[in-house]
Amino acid sequence: MLIAVLNGPNLNLLGQREPEVYGRTTLAEIERMVRDAAQSHGVEIEWLQTNHEGQLVDAVQGLRGRVDGALVNAAALTHSSLALRDAMLAVRVPFVELHLSNIFAREPERRHSVIADLAIGLVTGFGPQSYLLALQALVSRLRGG
Amino acid sequence: MLIAVLNGPNLNLLGQREPEVYGRTTLAEIERMVRDAAQSHGVEIEWLQTNHEGQLVDAVQGLRGRVDGALVNAAALTHSSLALRDAMLAVRVPFVELHLSNIFAREPERRHSVIADLAIGLVTGFGPQSYLLALQALVSRLRGG
Amino acid sequence: MLIAVLNGPNLNLLGQREPEVYGRTTLAEIERMVRDAAQSHGVEIEWLQTNHEGQLVDAVQGLRGRVDGALVNAAALTHSSLALRDAMLAVRVPFVELHLSNIFAREPERRHSVIADLAIGLVTGFGPQSYLLALQALVSRLRGG
Amino acid sequence: MLIAVLNGPNLNLLGQREPEVYGRTTLAEIERMVRDAAQSHGVEIEWLQTNHEGQLVDAVQGLRGRVDGALVNAAALTHSSLALRDAMLAVRVPFVELHLSNIFAREPERRHSVIADLAIGLVTGFGPQSYLLALQALVSRLRGG
Amino acid sequence: MLIAVLNGPNLNLLGQREPEVYGRTTLAEIERMVRDAAQSHGVEIEWLQTNHEGQLVDAVQGLRGRVDGALVNAAALTHSSLALRDAMLAVRVPFVELHLSNIFAREPERRHSVIADLAIGLVTGFGPQSYLLALQALVSRLRGG
Amino acid sequence: MLIAVLNGPNLNLLGQREPEVYGRTTLAEIERMVRDAAQSHGVEIEWLQTNHEGQLVDAVQGLRGRVDGALVNAAALTHSSLALRDAMLAVRVPFVELHLSNIFAREPERRHSVIADLAIGLVTGFGPQSYLLALQALVSRLRGG
Amino acid sequence: MLIAVLNGPNLNLLGQREPEVYGRTTLAEIERMVRDAAQSHGVEIEWLQTNHEGQLVDAVQGLRGRVDGALVNAAALTHSSLALRDAMLAVRVPFVELHLSNIFAREPERRHSVIADLAIGLVTGFGPQSYLLALQALVSRLRGG
Amino acid sequence: MLIAVLNGPNLNLLGQREPEVYGRTTLAEIERMVRDAAQSHGVEIEWLQTNHEGQLVDAVQGLRGRVDGALVNAAALTHSSLALRDAMLAVRVPFVELHLSNIFAREPERRHSVIADLAIGLVTGFGPQSYLLALQALVSRLRGG
Amino acid sequence: MLIAVLNGPNLNLLGQREPEVYGRTTLAEIERMVRDAAQSHGVEIEWLQTNHEGQLVDAVQGLRGRVDGALVNAAALTHSSLALRDAMLAVRVPFVELHLSNIFAREPERRHSVIADLAIGLVTGFGPQSYLLALQALVSRLRGG
Amino acid sequence: MLIAVLNGPNLNLLGQREPEVYGRTTLAEIERMVRDAAQSHGVEIEWLQTNHEGQLVDAVQGLRGRVDGALVNAAALTHSSLALRDAMLAVRVPFVELHLSNIFAREPERRHSVIADLAIGLVTGFGPQSYLLALQALVSRLRGG
Amino acid sequence: MLIAVLNGPNLNLLGQREPEVYGRTTLAEIERMVRDAAQSHGVEIEWLQTNHEGQLVDAVQGLRGRVDGALVNAAALTHSSLALRDAMLAVRVPFVELHLSNIFAREPERRHSVIADLAIGLVTGFGPQSYLLALQALVSRLRGG
Amino acid sequence: MLIAVLNGPNLNLLGQREPEVYGRTTLAEIERMVRDAAQSHGVEIEWLQTNHEGQLVDAVQGLRGRVDGALVNAAALTHSSLALRDAMLAVRVPFVELHLSNIFAREPERRHSVIADLAIGLVTGFGPQSYLLALQALVSRLRGG
Repeated sequence: MLIAVLNGPNLNLLGQREPEVYGRTTLAEIERMVRDAAQSHGVEIEWLQTNHEGQLVDAVQGLRGRVDGALVNAAALTHSSLALRDAMLAVRVPFVELHLSNIFAREPERRHSVIADLAIGLVTGFGPQSYLLALQALVSRLRGG
Repeated sequence: MLIAVLNGPNLNLLGQREPEVYGRTTLAEIERMVRDAAQSHGVEIEWLQTNHEGQLVDAVQGLRGRVDGALVNAAALTHSSLALRDAMLAVRVPFVELHLSNIFAREPERRHSVIADLAIGLVTGFGPQSYLLALQALVSRLRGG
Repeated sequence: MLIAVLNGPNLNLLGQREPEVYGRTTLAEIERMVRDAAQSHGVEIEWLQTNHEGQLVDAVQGLRGRVDGALVNAAALTHSSLALRDAMLAVRVPFVELHLSNIFAREPERRHSVIADLAIGLVTGFGPQSYLLALQALVSRLRGG
Repeated sequence: MLIAVLNGPNLNLLGQREPEVYGRTTLAEIERMVRDAAQSHGVEIEWLQTNHEGQLVDAVQGLRGRVDGALVNAAALTHSSLALRDAMLAVRVPFVELHLSNIFAREPERRHSVIADLAIGLVTGFGPQSYLLALQALVSRLRGG
Repeated sequence: MLIAVLNGPNLNLLGQREPEVYGRTTLAEIERMVRDAAQSHGVEIEWLQTNHEGQLVDAVQGLRGRVDGALVNAAALTHSSLALRDAMLAVRVPFVELHLSNIFAREPERRHSVIADLAIGLVTGFGPQSYLLALQALVSRLRGG
Repeated sequence: MLIAVLNGPNLNLLGQREPEVYGRTTLAEIERMVRDAAQSHGVEIEWLQTNHEGQLVDAVQGLRGRVDGALVNAAALTHSSLALRDAMLAVRVPFVELHLSNIFAREPERRHSVIADLAIGLVTGFGPQSYLLALQALVSRLRGG
Repeated sequence: MLIAVLNGPNLNLLGQREPEVYGRTTLAEIERMVRDAAQSHGVEIEWLQTNHEGQLVDAVQGLRGRVDGALVNAAALTHSSLALRDAMLAVRVPFVELHLSNIFAREPERRHSVIADLAIGLVTGFGPQSYLLALQALVSRLRGG
Repeated sequence: MLIAVLNGPNLNLLGQREPEVYGRTTLAEIERMVRDAAQSHGVEIEWLQTNHEGQLVDAVQGLRGRVDGALVNAAALTHSSLALRDAMLAVRVPFVELHLSNIFAREPERRHSVIADLAIGLVTGFGPQSYLLALQALVSRLRGG
Repeated sequence: MLIAVLNGPNLNLLGQREPEVYGRTTLAEIERMVRDAAQSHGVEIEWLQTNHEGQLVDAVQGLRGRVDGALVNAAALTHSSLALRDAMLAVRVPFVELHLSNIFAREPERRHSVIADLAIGLVTGFGPQSYLLALQALVSRLRGG
Repeated sequence: MLIAVLNGPNLNLLGQREPEVYGRTTLAEIERMVRDAAQSHGVEIEWLQTNHEGQLVDAVQGLRGRVDGALVNAAALTHSSLALRDAMLAVRVPFVELHLSNIFAREPERRHSVIADLAIGLVTGFGPQSYLLALQALVSRLRGG
Repeated sequence: MLIAVLNGPNLNLLGQREPEVYGRTTLAEIERMVRDAAQSHGVEIEWLQTNHEGQLVDAVQGLRGRVDGALVNAAALTHSSLALRDAMLAVRVPFVELHLSNIFAREPERRHSVIADLAIGLVTGFGPQSYLLALQALVSRLRGG
Repeated sequence: MLIAVLNGPNLNLLGQREPEVYGRTTLAEIERMVRDAAQSHGVEIEWLQTNHEGQLVDAVQGLRGRVDGALVNAAALTHSSLALRDAMLAVRVPFVELHLSNIFAREPERRHSVIADLAIGLVTGFGPQSYLLALQALVSRLRGG
């Protein structure tokens, strides 16, 4: 089972960027945690972080027929990218949306997601653990749970 | 460690009510799953379901100084009950909000929660598994994870 | 054939409360009129009035598999109770919504109903006769008219 | 006692037009049903259908001092015709508004009526029976019921 | 000098319709007053009243190249008829908009006019005198005043 | 008969200020025209122009029990001054609102007047002639016309 | 003279709940202060606190013909309970609305009250003293002050 | 193959009306162009222009079972006529919506069409050529293209 | 202890202006009542009424370091004067906002105050007694109550 | 004559992506159809598809002084890209906007285009034929049609 | 070259008023800085501060034909004074708008300026330096830079 | 001292693009002006222009710990790019926002900036001089001015 983890703009700065909002763990540390957890689930991981909307769209297109599911933390693109939405609609890969911070406790423009209605579900607010919970939810769903 | 699980109006009908939206598992079955999982975490569970906003407010008030955290699926009260919000503000018990269905894929009036910004985080869309993921997230947070 | 008649908050004050809006007939008199009309239709009536949203939700839940239809005058709860809506969605009992006053000639916040789209239809503005017309419409529909 | 029944645009297509919304009964059949019911009430009926707003306004003006009341199904004009409203205001003939479909279960722009606050009341959602219930309500009100 | 006076829906009922709003003078009396005043200005009058939007549009189209100006009291069509607006835009005849009642002291939907920005100006609230003031303003403008 | 003419901010610049909108006649010339017309009506005029909202309010207060009516061109204060509205409400002197330009052909924030519903009526768009028409309308109303 | 004091949801937690907003005085202490002040006014007090909207409605209904006036701190129900509004409309007991915190310095959804326009007046922001000022205002009004 | 071309209010003025917006070609010339193009497609044309909404509704009703498709330029009625929409819904004749000017480069109230979602598609902004392109698109679709 | 009482536009007309809204007591009588009450509290009063926003701003600026608190009835300026708000922000003198009428029972534009969130609290609806209650609340707060 | 055809994000997936909305023809097949049609018009085609907004902006900038016109199907970028709008404004190349699906029959956020007012016109809803009609319209306009 | 510097309400309190927002420099110190800088530019300065909107309007009117340009910090009047806007429109003196604080980082009602579109440009957020930058920008523009 | 100057989409077309809005100076000429001015301030400049949002985000990320401040003219991205906002939040480099044209005199969608509240301040409307003023403001702030 192959699962892609897609990370949007500025997530490469995790650990430095507004630590009072996003915590002090780096994205590399989160990647390690996710890979470890995936291994224990018997799942392979493909990892991407990009600051470019176009690259994220290209990546989503490339998922089709190749991966079993995806975890998507689209960061700032969550709230406005119809191109990302169209790509998710096109490839129809099952995915879980996740966020590190609780987007409902933030500014209004961060409380709307243009892809959430396409997702199986959403996990938000648990810091790096959001990735692990989302992974667990996705694997469980893919295995018919 | 004692954790309360609070369930709002109509959740007692789970399994019968709109199964295409909420699935076929009953609330009693979910309670059993949650109790089992809690046991494996070494956590005690207190379970409540009510159709009465006032009883839910009473229950939240009763959590103070007695439980370590709560899982809250306030159902229809999620979207409008300022009395529930005030109660959560008053007792300041850490809690995770959860929903069975993906509230972002539903009608607009179901996409707003009056307690979400008070929660640690939110898990939505994974059916009964939402309870288990929320439990895991809460326990992990309470144990300093 | 068994039909439930559900009456929401403050309807117990009929005849005293704002008679220029609601008329001078009491709820007990209306109940008698409805029971008489039902008898002539060969229909049994179950009657409830409550000021408590939770009790109304409980009552709706109790209709399932037991009554053939319902008349619903939810009064102030008409305009905001998503819990009532969820209960009606869950039990899927055919019902007719009714109001004594013409809600379209009143304040804007009284012109919206959160259950009207679930109803067979709506009768509003004819005072106590609204109950009789609604009963007639419901019986006719249940008998395949 | 003379009662006018006014029918707005496209109601002449009843039975053909969107039968899943409006049913399969034709307007001629409804007219016959209404005339029969009126006869049993000892009431005379005057019937009009038109696709022209101006003709409807002319017709309403012609009611003054000649009929005792009216049933009005203004169809699409319900939602926007201030000229119809002004005519109803001018002649001050008591009337009941009616619709075949449940306008509250339809698109938002169909949920507003510019004449409803001038009506005695409104009956909506019962197909052809809406005419009969509205007739009954109007006759009863005109006879002081 | 030829001036058309265009009167919209329900103005034929003046004197009977809501006298507390529109006064007791009939449209025929107003026509006589306007014709008298016009004569004293040395101006010829063409008079139209219609309840049909289409006839009003036809009439406006017929003004082109034939009349020197127009007085327009479009009544209920004032607030919504883009077809009337397009006709006024097409013929580009200078006109003054007028109303009997003070439209700014009425319901919100009567405070907007879809032709007012095309008019030389607007006179509103002076009862039948609104016609005379508007006539005076138009004649004066047409004579270069 | 004594009539006050109240002119708001920047009207003292008439003739210089945006002549393409307001024309080239000065306020002094308009005052002369109004005084001449008033004389022919047998009416005395009291004239005020001020750039200070407070002075306008003081002036309105001073009208009470002293003048028979007023013409009000409140200029920029038309659209926002609740203090002016309160003063007009307090003294209850009959008045006509007027504007030089057609306020309906201008920016949206100029299309709303906070005093228009208190006026007998409104005349707008006829340049200096607006004053003369308004005077005529007011005199006629005061003389019972 | 008998005056009822009605307290809505979560006010039983006063002194513990968000003391930076609501202060450290308990509701029991406030009750004592109000009873003392009432005694000095020669007024009897009836005291209620409830977290249940239905109970509050029941209580309001019970006031009719029995008490001379009421003080109402409806807490979270202030902002949404049409059932409470209907009850107040029905019993028509003169009342003063009060709040401990300054609701105008709080979140937007707390700045609207569905009963304020039915009240004699409103006192907000003075902590426990709000009760005493409201009592004084009510007594004074009831005694014709 | 028979195709109806329906033209709404004021299109009879084409060539004279606002030529900077609509061009200098008359409707008669456009009709000739459309008939010529239709002939080359082997298609028969039925042509209507009316300023009366009611006549347009009558005409649409008359299309049913008689024509294969329609081109609709409803002009000002595009933006508000629910009666036209109901007629199109009733007859379910495939049609293409067209406009001479680019409605997206015009005032906001011209950017909404109440029939566009019922059309196969829309062609806007190409002057008389809009008719020819729309004809081509419709013929192609009707021939299975 | 020195307390300023600031009164905004048109309050000098009290007793004459809309007595059905504001009562028949004059501002001079209220001043006397306030001075009497102040004396019994051992407090000195400074009294101002002005129709000029600028004078009110000047007066507020002059409070700094000289008075202990203020009562503010800003009348029409309550709803729009950001200059008054800035002045209150600048001098940071503790104040109570008050109104004679119940602003919540009035037009929507009177239900918003641009200074209320800066006040200790607000008293509204008790006529002249609003001044006395506000004085009492302010003195009590200043004395640490 | 050289014409650029610019295709936005996800159009490279045509034929696979939501075939019920966009049809089964691939973009390569459309390109061939457009090139064939262009050849028959004697026009050369330059073809671009990209998922990157920046590349689309670069491409638009590169059109200046080199191509005679453009066809633009900006897909998801249609609705939000001000950068694309600025580029079109900067190069001022005449263009036709086109869409495969009828954007007026889709979700609200797809009914707004940030470039439509800059286009000659718009063709939407005819599947691959939209390209051919748009090409024809553009060529005809460029040749002075 | 003569340049006027106009300062609106409460700026006379600079240095004392909310120093965390506006800094500790007084207006007198800023005036000295501006005069020094002006001297080095060979420019004369005319300085005004007023809390009265009417005085500001008077002052703006007095600029015409006398000064070469103006710096305007209208403070609270920036956001609402149409009278100030009209005065700026009337005198057509080139001006630069400036603010001490960054108005975009403040409350929403401070982010709108009713004169900004009339200005050459705007400088905001640099404390007293905003004056110096604005002066420099204005001088440079006036000298053809 | 090192200062980055970041320029968003289409600024590379300066001098050609809408010269009536943006002037005739090219970006290369502006760069030279800025470098000259920087040199006289003893400041080094790093210059970037890109049409790609992703590259701008990458560039902002690269500023951290390397430059002392930034000038940001994000052009079309100013109004919508949350990714740019997040990057500015993450690196927390002090910056001044600038625009060539006066964004307050343009279309509404250009009057909102998603980064302005993070900036020290904003300079807008002075053409190329906006860069020089912004540079001066930034240097002065960085040197403690």
